[in-house]
Amino acid sequence: MSKTTAIVNGVDTEKLFGTIEAIKADPSIAKFEFRLFNQWIDAGENRSRIDDFHGANQELRHKQPFFLVSDEPELLLSEDRGPNPVEYVLHALAGCMTTGLVYHAAARGIAIKGLTTRFEGDLDLRGFLGISNEVRRGFSAIRVMFDIDADCDDAKKRELIDMAQTYSPVFDVVSNGLPVACMLDDGVAKAQAA
Amino acid sequence: MSKTTAIVNGVDTEKLFGTIEAIKADPSIAKFEFRLFNQWIDAGENRSRIDDFHGANQELRHKQPFFLVSDEPELLLSEDRGPNPVEYVLHALAGCMTTGLVYHAAARGIAIKGLTTRFEGDLDLRGFLGISNEVRRGFSAIRVMFDIDADCDDAKKRELIDMAQTYSPVFDVVSNGLPVACMLDDGVAKAQAA
Repeated sequence: MSKTTAIVNGVDTEKLFGTIEAIKADPSIAKFEFRLFNQWIDAGENRSRIDDFHGANQELRHKQPFFLVSDEPELLLSEDRGPNPVEYVLHALAGCMTTGLVYHAAARGIAIKGLTTRFEGDLDLRGFLGISNEVRRGFSAIRVMFDIDADCDDAKKRELIDMAQTYSPVFDVVSNGLPVACMLDDGVAKAQAA
Repeated sequence: MSKTTAIVNGVDTEKLFGTIEAIKADPSIAKFEFRLFNQWIDAGENRSRIDDFHGANQELRHKQPFFLVSDEPELLLSEDRGPNPVEYVLHALAGCMTTGLVYHAAARGIAIKGLTTRFEGDLDLRGFLGISNEVRRGFSAIRVMFDIDADCDDAKKRELIDMAQTYSPVFDVVSNGLPVACMLDDGVAKAQAA
């Protein structure tokens, strides 16, 4: 395979297959821990810093730290300085399903020319406000529409969507949930400032 | 209650209680739909645009559209131009639990002076890469450490954390999951460009 054809959808498939073989030989390489610090600013506004993470048996760091702003619109009593947390859930899901589709298509040699998606989530505010226990706090449903530009028929495009659902970590999180352990720790602000 | 004391943690509690009463009188006000468009760029990079949403029986719009970039680090075969999707999950959860804690503290008249949190999530890449069906695709566990600066004892601070867990929509999503319906729709790119 030439260097040219190894790149599919921007993904170096030789490296991808190399990574898969390396992990098969030593599964400890596959264990990652992702992290962030978040600081409350005022009302619905807060900010996260994302910088280091652990993976491939070493401490790693992004090329640069990333800063994210959450806020709520004025209707929800804040200043609307950023997307709100449930919109970030839709973004996390969109990013992950897109990457899952594109990487798994690359591994199968399927060239994607364009991929645009639409995400919609239904939320009843009575949950968050504690008005009703009959509606859930989070989204009750999410709808995802995939527009795939590729040289294949609709049946093959539906297979690509199936792959995104099968392999996306965030699709798994949002579909199935997981345990979240919360604790009080008065050393966090000091660690964040360090 | 004077105008001054109605603002707790930056939240106008008179407006908050007014919203709650309005929703009790007409629950349809509480129904929201949040939305985004996402576009694949290259390899692990994609971008979302967040602009309009529906709520309080009307079409609404953020003060300005928000743009978010997802990417993967070089180790994961991309250019590291933004946080990756699972880091966005941690940010969504951080933003929502922080807002839940702050708003519900405000409703109870508890002043928060500072709130810093640390989020950690464990992910085994063998799931995403399809190497093993014994490990899940998403996070296997998330740990959250809360550092709360407020004039109250640890027992009261733990009550505040309980409130964040009880009322946060993203905590509900990440803990319990929900149905995500995926479909092929070749009109999305055109709608996004409009």
